[in-house]
Amino acid sequence: MEKERSERFARPKGTRDFWPHEMERRRRAESTLRDLFHLYGYREVATPTFENLDLFTRKSGEGVKNQLYAFKDKSDRDITLRPELTAPVLRFYVNELSREPKPLKLYYFGNCFRYEEPQSGRYREFWQFGLELIGPRGPEADGEVIAIAAKAVESLGLSDAELRIGHIGILRELIGALPIDEAKKAEAHRKIDKKEAGLAWFLEDAGASSAEAGLLEEVAGTTGGPDVLKTAADLLSGRPNAHKAVQELTRLAEIVALHGVKRFHIDLGVVRGLDYYTGAVFEIHSPSLGAESQVCGGGAYSLAEMFGGESVGSSGFGLGFDRVLLASAPKTEVKKGRIDAFIVPVGPEARGKAIEVAVGLRAAGISADSDLMDRSISKCLDYANAIGARRVVIIGKKELESGSVTVKNMETGAQESVRLGDVAKHLKAA
Amino acid sequence: MEKERSERFARPKGTRDFWPHEMERRRRAESTLRDLFHLYGYREVATPTFENLDLFTRKSGEGVKNQLYAFKDKSDRDITLRPELTAPVLRFYVNELSREPKPLKLYYFGNCFRYEEPQSGRYREFWQFGLELIGPRGPEADGEVIAIAAKAVESLGLSDAELRIGHIGILRELIGALPIDEAKKAEAHRKIDKKEAGLAWFLEDAGASSAEAGLLEEVAGTTGGPDVLKTAADLLSGRPNAHKAVQELTRLAEIVALHGVKRFHIDLGVVRGLDYYTGAVFEIHSPSLGAESQVCGGGAYSLAEMFGGESVGSSGFGLGFDRVLLASAPKTEVKKGRIDAFIVPVGPEARGKAIEVAVGLRAAGISADSDLMDRSISKCLDYANAIGARRVVIIGKKELESGSVTVKNMETGAQESVRLGDVAKHLKAA
Repeated sequence: MEKERSERFARPKGTRDFWPHEMERRRRAESTLRDLFHLYGYREVATPTFENLDLFTRKSGEGVKNQLYAFKDKSDRDITLRPELTAPVLRFYVNELSREPKPLKLYYFGNCFRYEEPQSGRYREFWQFGLELIGPRGPEADGEVIAIAAKAVESLGLSDAELRIGHIGILRELIGALPIDEAKKAEAHRKIDKKEAGLAWFLEDAGASSAEAGLLEEVAGTTGGPDVLKTAADLLSGRPNAHKAVQELTRLAEIVALHGVKRFHIDLGVVRGLDYYTGAVFEIHSPSLGAESQVCGGGAYSLAEMFGGESVGSSGFGLGFDRVLLASAPKTEVKKGRIDAFIVPVGPEARGKAIEVAVGLRAAGISADSDLMDRSISKCLDYANAIGARRVVIIGKKELESGSVTVKNMETGAQESVRLGDVAKHLKAA
Repeated sequence: MEKERSERFARPKGTRDFWPHEMERRRRAESTLRDLFHLYGYREVATPTFENLDLFTRKSGEGVKNQLYAFKDKSDRDITLRPELTAPVLRFYVNELSREPKPLKLYYFGNCFRYEEPQSGRYREFWQFGLELIGPRGPEADGEVIAIAAKAVESLGLSDAELRIGHIGILRELIGALPIDEAKKAEAHRKIDKKEAGLAWFLEDAGASSAEAGLLEEVAGTTGGPDVLKTAADLLSGRPNAHKAVQELTRLAEIVALHGVKRFHIDLGVVRGLDYYTGAVFEIHSPSLGAESQVCGGGAYSLAEMFGGESVGSSGFGLGFDRVLLASAPKTEVKKGRIDAFIVPVGPEARGKAIEVAVGLRAAGISADSDLMDRSISKCLDYANAIGARRVVIIGKKELESGSVTVKNMETGAQESVRLGDVAKHLKAA
């Protein structure tokens, strides 16, 4: 049946097609992370790709709609492609998993969607790994989550990762106590999150005293090794909740170190963007990524109540899979795959035998491909080379008569004759 | 921060959340299929979750819109969640992969979306594996594709799978030659696809001669072992294209058998629903699934031209991942996972040591979890049992002093004392 030649079809803006060598790298990285999470006793869950719109507006406010792929389905229901995975997983927890033994250790991997301008490291469809520890509260729980995040990023070969750990309770108390209006408090929070300059000036302008503004700026700017927490404890001696948060953070730093994480900073200016965080918070950045440097973020939070459940301790993180891969990309990429054997039948009477040999190799766990295009030996060798075959097995008339085949090593060029029944053993040994 | 208790959020109709034990089964099945496809030299590709709407209306006609999750994005572009994966992969092939060495062996796994009434084995979001062999044409190529499909279904434990192989060229010639109008031809095609009774009567009523109608009904009803092709060849001796198709099918049956596929039927009534098929076609059914019994289908087709590319040989299949899993589901499902070790610290001074022991075990590749909720030994044992821990490692004051821990075998109940440095070795040996 002939079809008319027609125009090509574009891929939607901000999305990607993945080549085989890209998928191989992605699946390997997926596997690495799964193995890591399994070592800590976490198990995978999955939720739908679209959700009812109100799940996300409840968690993040109406403003989030601007970034969503939201639409009405054929029954006029408001649904949206998921922009992130924590809300769906907590919905699942509240609706079905809340009676499971605690701690409940969950992880997930899925695609998320945001309608925003595409740029390096920012796509309209992107992939996220995430992990939630539900049940316990406190430094041991948060410390495990942070350690897994650090090891996850390390396991994918990110060499420049910076782990920064803070505690939302410190600045929340200081900001909360300021005699300024709520909008200015929110703006102060945002300035701290973005590490913008001029915080003290802004606060004084808004009505805070010079001492309050100075303390806040000093605390928000506190970064360094765990030792800086001693200074912070002194600064905050008159603020009981903030002081308690510093003590929690001190214990948290010990736990993270016990987990074998050697490189991390305390950064009291890490406040995360969202107000459902309740305690420890952390971010991992890869400076090589430039403006969009964050590859992972999380902390202790409270969301189950928001979705109709009972209050429960919870800590977790989201890891930007595409960004981590971008930051750890090898300098040179090899496009061809690796197949163990390519079988070349010479002449029509060898074609059936080629299939049989391939079947036998595969049964022995050896990946094998055979000529399907009736090509000459030299064309077959070109193709075998192009797809990265390690060995070529040539089956000709002479070979058929003698009950043996010629095996060519594509790395060295060496050829040898191997008995038909021994090809699998020969290739396994090679 | 306290949140008000609010209503729960529903999951969208026709979608699913997956529990940990379900995801474990799904990921195992995924892995089984990937390993199989790799043995044949196929490599994975991936495409976006949504596409421009016209990609699918071009392939399947405007009518497909009724089943799509189609919507306008914020720039008023018509996009849709993908209902299937062949069109996106062929778009990708035409736009980017057409210069790669042939044969190009691709496979993919992804979620697809159809707006239809949910029922057993039919969801609004469902998962598909698929495979495309691009470049060669003919029985050797089609035979490899069919054999992989059969082995895929078999590898997932489907015991009642029925593979039916046909050739679109046979009935296409017979129907094409009938002196009836196009709408009636399409209806005849549909009746054959659905195996509806009364085909000859319908054709005669539409204007075909009794001989034509009888031949068509007899050919469409031809099923059985490869031997039935001899009878078909005799019946079709006066129809050169149909006769040639029977010869191709005869060779295809030989190739499929050479690939080690023992159980299959020739079924000349397999015509698939879509008109881009060009040659061999096949379906795999699992009768245990009832009305929605098809788990896999495919054949030789021609699509690249439709998407603006050059004509190229192509064969492939789509495999309904959810349906295969439904058809091969174990009778009893075990919800708990398996973790190698659960560590129980007794008393505050042992808590840090518990983390260190867990870190050591994980470094040795042993999955380990430790108490995060400050529970008593007996509560910890209950939890360890609930999550399916194989061993519990108890670290108490006495144990800390003696430099050893107590390891409890959760299957036998036996306990023994093991030196701290030997725990990993001990658990590996167990």
